[in-house]
Amino acid sequence: MSDERVTDGFWLVEDESLGLAVDLTAMALDPDAMEVMAPRLARALTAMAALENGAIANPDEKRMVGHYWLRAPGLAPVQAFTEAIEAALDRVKDFAAKVHSGAVLTPSGKRFEQVLVIGIGGSTLGPQYVSHALGGPGDKLRAAFIDNTDPDGIDRVVARLRAGVGLDATLTVVISKSGGTKETRNGMLEVARAYAADGLAFAGHAVAVTGDGSELDRVARGDGWLEVFPMWDWVGGRTSELSAVGLLPAALQGLDVDAMLAGARDTDVATRREGWRQNPAAALAAAWFLTGDGHGDRAMVVLPYKDRLELFSRYLQQLVMESLGKDKDLDGATVHQGIAVFGNKGSTDQHAYVQQLRDGRDDFFVTFIEVLRSRVGERFDVDPGVTSADYLFGFMEGTRRALAERGRPSLTVTIAEADARGVGMLIALYERAVGFYATLVNINAYHQPGVEAGKRAATELLALQARVEAALPADESAALDAAGVAAKLGEPEVLTVARVLRHLAHGGEHAVARVTGTGLLASRYCSRRAS
Amino acid sequence: MSDERVTDGFWLVEDESLGLAVDLTAMALDPDAMEVMAPRLARALTAMAALENGAIANPDEKRMVGHYWLRAPGLAPVQAFTEAIEAALDRVKDFAAKVHSGAVLTPSGKRFEQVLVIGIGGSTLGPQYVSHALGGPGDKLRAAFIDNTDPDGIDRVVARLRAGVGLDATLTVVISKSGGTKETRNGMLEVARAYAADGLAFAGHAVAVTGDGSELDRVARGDGWLEVFPMWDWVGGRTSELSAVGLLPAALQGLDVDAMLAGARDTDVATRREGWRQNPAAALAAAWFLTGDGHGDRAMVVLPYKDRLELFSRYLQQLVMESLGKDKDLDGATVHQGIAVFGNKGSTDQHAYVQQLRDGRDDFFVTFIEVLRSRVGERFDVDPGVTSADYLFGFMEGTRRALAERGRPSLTVTIAEADARGVGMLIALYERAVGFYATLVNINAYHQPGVEAGKRAATELLALQARVEAALPADESAALDAAGVAAKLGEPEVLTVARVLRHLAHGGEHAVARVTGTGLLASRYCSRRAS
Repeated sequence: MSDERVTDGFWLVEDESLGLAVDLTAMALDPDAMEVMAPRLARALTAMAALENGAIANPDEKRMVGHYWLRAPGLAPVQAFTEAIEAALDRVKDFAAKVHSGAVLTPSGKRFEQVLVIGIGGSTLGPQYVSHALGGPGDKLRAAFIDNTDPDGIDRVVARLRAGVGLDATLTVVISKSGGTKETRNGMLEVARAYAADGLAFAGHAVAVTGDGSELDRVARGDGWLEVFPMWDWVGGRTSELSAVGLLPAALQGLDVDAMLAGARDTDVATRREGWRQNPAAALAAAWFLTGDGHGDRAMVVLPYKDRLELFSRYLQQLVMESLGKDKDLDGATVHQGIAVFGNKGSTDQHAYVQQLRDGRDDFFVTFIEVLRSRVGERFDVDPGVTSADYLFGFMEGTRRALAERGRPSLTVTIAEADARGVGMLIALYERAVGFYATLVNINAYHQPGVEAGKRAATELLALQARVEAALPADESAALDAAGVAAKLGEPEVLTVARVLRHLAHGGEHAVARVTGTGLLASRYCSRRAS
Repeated sequence: MSDERVTDGFWLVEDESLGLAVDLTAMALDPDAMEVMAPRLARALTAMAALENGAIANPDEKRMVGHYWLRAPGLAPVQAFTEAIEAALDRVKDFAAKVHSGAVLTPSGKRFEQVLVIGIGGSTLGPQYVSHALGGPGDKLRAAFIDNTDPDGIDRVVARLRAGVGLDATLTVVISKSGGTKETRNGMLEVARAYAADGLAFAGHAVAVTGDGSELDRVARGDGWLEVFPMWDWVGGRTSELSAVGLLPAALQGLDVDAMLAGARDTDVATRREGWRQNPAAALAAAWFLTGDGHGDRAMVVLPYKDRLELFSRYLQQLVMESLGKDKDLDGATVHQGIAVFGNKGSTDQHAYVQQLRDGRDDFFVTFIEVLRSRVGERFDVDPGVTSADYLFGFMEGTRRALAERGRPSLTVTIAEADARGVGMLIALYERAVGFYATLVNINAYHQPGVEAGKRAATELLALQARVEAALPADESAALDAAGVAAKLGEPEVLTVARVLRHLAHGGEHAVARVTGTGLLASRYCSRRAS
């Protein structure tokens, strides 16, 4: 870390007015290779400019890609988009203000004190990141999340809400762009049942964020929910945090959504600049490309040294992996691209796996996220002249050095403060870096064709489950094993039938019993339903 | 997934009395290769038996490795160990009972209602996993954790404790085996300050879990803390969950520590069996070995389909990566071993990165963790005859299939229930699988030589910070840039000095100001301290 290009600042990309720096000095990159990236980055910037001007940047799905307009509505290529963004933001802030002021009350005339967000993937990863980063005991509404179709998990969240101020004082926000995501729909149905069990009308506590005309939109309007906020097909789920998806929960919690938007908008300005030396997102994309040989050969280990940014790496998992993990490039060649992302926070994670990072497999690069501002409260020395924050800094620097000694690359992103502005900056920085990288490796960052297969297979599985359940005899003495059920159904996958039978018999929810046998394949089952 | 070896159960390792199954059918392993593993696994079992009998299984550190004795104290090779384990468990349960009954009260005579755990790494990852998995609104004490030296993060936890029942009713457990871990010590000092600020005597609210004679042990005994519980050098941090480290927080929270211990003990019995067909831990280790070519070439993506197991993958990150991420093998050859571990939970993570898993880089295997028991409460149908749990199962099965279609391997671990017993089973299963795998690749799983370098570098950094701070002139007109400070100090790493200066000036805690210049290297700083 002491060659000339390091100490002359060649590898430092700094924007002081923004309060953002990207330090590539410990990436062990070749300066010549970085120069060679220049024309490729120029093409990435051109592609990005076209996208921002309304090109069909998602060719498979024939969609515009408009998340950058969310924080600069005037840039939208269609006046109607500008107006829709501005109107939605106004409505979000207005609704939150009314909830806070008591102009919007529960059906029984109480103040809302909790907000429950139901969603999954892009509809919760951003809201969870922001809620965790910026929330605290002073929040106007306390936030909770349901992000799965695990009934036990839902029961736990509902139990906590009830143990708090109760569902009566809880506003529920259901977020689903398509309105057809089953996990979210199930969460909604389960929660509506819980309200009903408490003698409460769900509709009077419910708000939707969804696409116009979606299934959820119809339910919300038909049942008279409090409000419906829009989603648009030109904003993808994983880049929707700065639409109503993220802004509504944040505003309800009492967080500064204007500062988040400003942080993102200012970062957009900085990341439109030509040349990686002036453009922190281009610098990141080029570094990812070079360190992973254009093929993601190194995993991205993301370590924010700030507890409140702990969920940022999880947010990035989706943004990076769903955007870049692609089978085909734009020319149709099979490429199997992607970059694996993991991490929680430093220095905590040092105690979990720095051992492997330093001594083990050399298949990653670390992204240190440094926040300059230490704490809001008064200074406290844990040693003479040394604070806890100095230790946090020391552990980050020490790890940087310990990794560099072993030739393990790392880069450092520095922001001034982990406030609403900083949280918005990180979102915008990585959105654009991912977009640039996609151009560098010639893929579509804005579709996700691979997620449908699992959903389709799940639907088939549920259909199979119904057939399996119906095929079971009520007579114990005629109990069937998996092979018997499969034969009866003409189903070739005995093992899948066996797994379904085990689920039905041991889940505790179906009238299916195992009557004899041991193990997945030898067990015999019958129905316990009234015949 | 329909060849003969699959449907004849060849790849299924089931133990029904235990309620545990490992399904390797979707790993696409070669049956002949699996047979070839037999003699290597036999050696791993022999090595493990020696370890359990008290061999020096951690040769570098000349230590016995005794975590299996924690749940079967009679197996310890030394009578004093047996007695120490039994006595510690009795004391943990007795102390928790007294806190619950009110026989132990706060200095002001109140009941304790919250427990704050301060630790990091092995001292919190297990407790956090268990607390999250088994806790809920009915806990006897509500649990909170401080697991870092981030003062802002500490302030947030303290603010939440104050907003709850207050520090007055909060018991603090400080966990550090060596007693010298700086993050934990800083957390303790910060929290002690918070108690003092609230007019409370910290010692009357504090309990330690630490090694005999450690720095923490001396502080706790010297200051008259409520209790000190033991840690022993024959239990490593990452395998300490079933010592007082994990059992004390769990018992205080009101969780069933006996069931956790029984789950682990029964799993130990099952994982001592010869032959992988009878031994789920051996089956896992062999599968890891074959799928990663004996070198961790595939990352382990861990997806429990159960919200309450969400932190298990994080717990595993340490257990697997710190144990297996090693530079040298036992013969001194350089091997750079390791297996990267990441994941949160299903089906949530499907919406984050199944796109990459199915279409992108082919460099991982998924571990599905299935829990048969769906929910404790009453059944609720989200579609006719279909529950949320059926969807959860369907998404897991669907993803298994969607990955298999693309040749992406996965294995499934099934447990009956995610209760205290199941939580203990998973710990024991993976502890032993990691131990077996270490023998398969001929490494020491029980040391962590790579973590010292970062700590040493951090100490050097803090010393440098003090010198940098002292080197700054108080006179603004004589302000120095990083190169100037480095020259004055004879410090070769200008960039490091520059980063220290930025931290000092912008952290908000030190009397250092930037007076002119822009950017890391050109900024000039002076001191603001009274001269």
